[in-house]
Amino acid sequence: MLSVIAIQDEIAAGRTTPAAEIARSLDRIAELDAGIGAFETLADRDAAIATAAAASGPLAGVSVGIKDIFDTADLPTAYGTALYAGYRPRTDAAAVTMIRQAGASVVGKTVTTEFAFLNPSRTRNPLDPAHTPGGSSSGSAAAVAAGMVAAATGTQTGGSVIRPAAYCGVSGYKPSFRLVPTVGAKTFSWSLDTVGFFAACVADVARFAACITRRPLDVEESASPPRIGIYRSRIWNEANAEMHHALGRAAEIAANAGAEVIEIDEPDTLAAGRDCHSTIQNYEVGLAMADDFLRFGDSMSKILREAIASGRAIPPADYDKARATARRARKAATALFHTVDVLLTPSATSAAPAGLASTGSPIFNKLWTLTGNPCVNVTGLANPAGLPLGVQVVARFGADRAALSAADWLERAIRAA
Amino acid sequence: MLSVIAIQDEIAAGRTTPAAEIARSLDRIAELDAGIGAFETLADRDAAIATAAAASGPLAGVSVGIKDIFDTADLPTAYGTALYAGYRPRTDAAAVTMIRQAGASVVGKTVTTEFAFLNPSRTRNPLDPAHTPGGSSSGSAAAVAAGMVAAATGTQTGGSVIRPAAYCGVSGYKPSFRLVPTVGAKTFSWSLDTVGFFAACVADVARFAACITRRPLDVEESASPPRIGIYRSRIWNEANAEMHHALGRAAEIAANAGAEVIEIDEPDTLAAGRDCHSTIQNYEVGLAMADDFLRFGDSMSKILREAIASGRAIPPADYDKARATARRARKAATALFHTVDVLLTPSATSAAPAGLASTGSPIFNKLWTLTGNPCVNVTGLANPAGLPLGVQVVARFGADRAALSAADWLERAIRAA
Repeated sequence: MLSVIAIQDEIAAGRTTPAAEIARSLDRIAELDAGIGAFETLADRDAAIATAAAASGPLAGVSVGIKDIFDTADLPTAYGTALYAGYRPRTDAAAVTMIRQAGASVVGKTVTTEFAFLNPSRTRNPLDPAHTPGGSSSGSAAAVAAGMVAAATGTQTGGSVIRPAAYCGVSGYKPSFRLVPTVGAKTFSWSLDTVGFFAACVADVARFAACITRRPLDVEESASPPRIGIYRSRIWNEANAEMHHALGRAAEIAANAGAEVIEIDEPDTLAAGRDCHSTIQNYEVGLAMADDFLRFGDSMSKILREAIASGRAIPPADYDKARATARRARKAATALFHTVDVLLTPSATSAAPAGLASTGSPIFNKLWTLTGNPCVNVTGLANPAGLPLGVQVVARFGADRAALSAADWLERAIRAA
Repeated sequence: MLSVIAIQDEIAAGRTTPAAEIARSLDRIAELDAGIGAFETLADRDAAIATAAAASGPLAGVSVGIKDIFDTADLPTAYGTALYAGYRPRTDAAAVTMIRQAGASVVGKTVTTEFAFLNPSRTRNPLDPAHTPGGSSSGSAAAVAAGMVAAATGTQTGGSVIRPAAYCGVSGYKPSFRLVPTVGAKTFSWSLDTVGFFAACVADVARFAACITRRPLDVEESASPPRIGIYRSRIWNEANAEMHHALGRAAEIAANAGAEVIEIDEPDTLAAGRDCHSTIQNYEVGLAMADDFLRFGDSMSKILREAIASGRAIPPADYDKARATARRARKAATALFHTVDVLLTPSATSAAPAGLASTGSPIFNKLWTLTGNPCVNVTGLANPAGLPLGVQVVARFGADRAALSAADWLERAIRAA
């Protein structure tokens, strides 16, 4: 895979140039993407290389794939649906501007599922093309995993960053809610939609996020071992035996490396928070995409059409009740971090499922999307077939650097074990 | 002015039809708007009347002006700037769809200031064309005041609903934050942008909001007199003597009509909240409109360009500090309502200022935009020249019906006095 930090270091040492790095990314895409299908559209090669040659900023030479749910003025934006074929927004989404302002190069738009919901895309998992890469940020996770780009953007409303990162064996980072603006990304659910990022490893995704947000998010390598709570949620049995084993192994490695590891039971308020996620999501998409539904509903996938229709039928009082439940869950989530620095939970129910008929289940992600806590997928564990089993580090709301630093610590411990 | 409730009643009684009402609105616009400049674009007359004739829903026959900061698929959307001339979004903003789904007719797009900020528009105050109608929802407030439409939409980031309502002598309602989705309205500041409405009187704006949100927002006419807190904020002396007199008169009328009226001093946390508004607004617009700024900044007004530039220079840590101040202000705002049902404060510093060089000051509005409390402008008081002096009813977050009902009670008491 391409590494953000390695590219920065090599450029600083004079061993490569931003233009050469962008050319390398585009070469890799030309070579590999026919078998993966991670890209929807590509930037013009000559223009992208010329722009990179002139780029300044800390991410000059860093190739980025932009999930095609974000508006771009210079590339078509289709939100994963033929309904928006040929759509050309006037301006870039805020996150895209942040990326360009940091000197990085947008080399293409990556495949998203239809409006970033559950209907699968054509993208294949680079680690085994017979398996799904997950969704909805399918192309972004696959593009990083295949070494075609150094970083990519995603959005998570249920589990659309952490889950594809886990399935593809890359680092995925879902920041605290609204750390990165969603302006210019197609709205599904304004209380849940969260911008996230993919890169090869935790230190890379942290560096990328630090450079574009201008926030101190770089991992603290000298940090002492974190206090880790193994979060045994009510949905524990939704994970398969391989995932149970992986989480146990991660806990064992962490303890052996000096971390304090304790078990944390799920409070009722957090289980209730998970249960109200779909009410909030569907009510909001019923309003946010009402006009899309009325104009194009007949051409939408059944799963999306039914989600929007169900949301339109939810009485406002039920939505208000769900929002109150969510507020209580956010408070309860903060209280969890009185005794531990981070929680460790599965990133998904299993390794990437076989087939492209489903993008897998977001059930281990949606609670943390609702509460807004920062989450990082940690790679390094795998099932007997060699497919990654991702585990998820969760930190207190706003403690993004703690989440990234603990995830980096764990990733290094797993590598060393 | 046209009344939402009167139109509903007359249609129910068979004395008029939805098509006739929409024709009446378009006739009024044709007659009056040349001297006011409230409309940016108009719907096709024949199509609008035909649609109204076929409309069902509680707002059939209700003519609505849509502030041109909301996307519309069938009318150009230009955000108050030549930079977006000819822009045609694919879908309507969520609020527009809600309005159409309730059976109301969009008769045109109303003039907004440039990107809904402070640079004045060409719209004149219908009560005196030598005075500003206020902003940024200039055309919406003026269109209702002139009797050209029964209702109109606005957005408020500082004071863009309550202030123009006050200057134009109409009812303006800023709901609790996110009661109505902002999806499809151009983002200025995602923590502050709030969708609001204008109509002739409080009962009308409440009925309109009730019908489009399907929430129980109709005023409770049988409610007992509210407990009212006269909110003496630190900026009291920013209001002129006329406004001081108007607020005193409103308090006197309320007490005479049976309300308990007490004085409330502004807590430090709320004064601090007001002071942090511009940091949050400018930081967020610096990100939300970064690409607009980079592409079109040279063609923006100086006041907008400087606001965006100043936002781009704010360190994230300062923004985070302001957000923490805002969170404390929201809690303190809730605590104010332990002893009173509503607060009463000026809607603006004065009656509509003379001239079109400024849209006036939002200083009496921006605290409540920050805290997200529902606000309603109450009409009925005026200065010696006959220009309206609006007073503002503020209720607890989420208590929108209480805000509307108390405002309606006060409006009737003022009329009767």
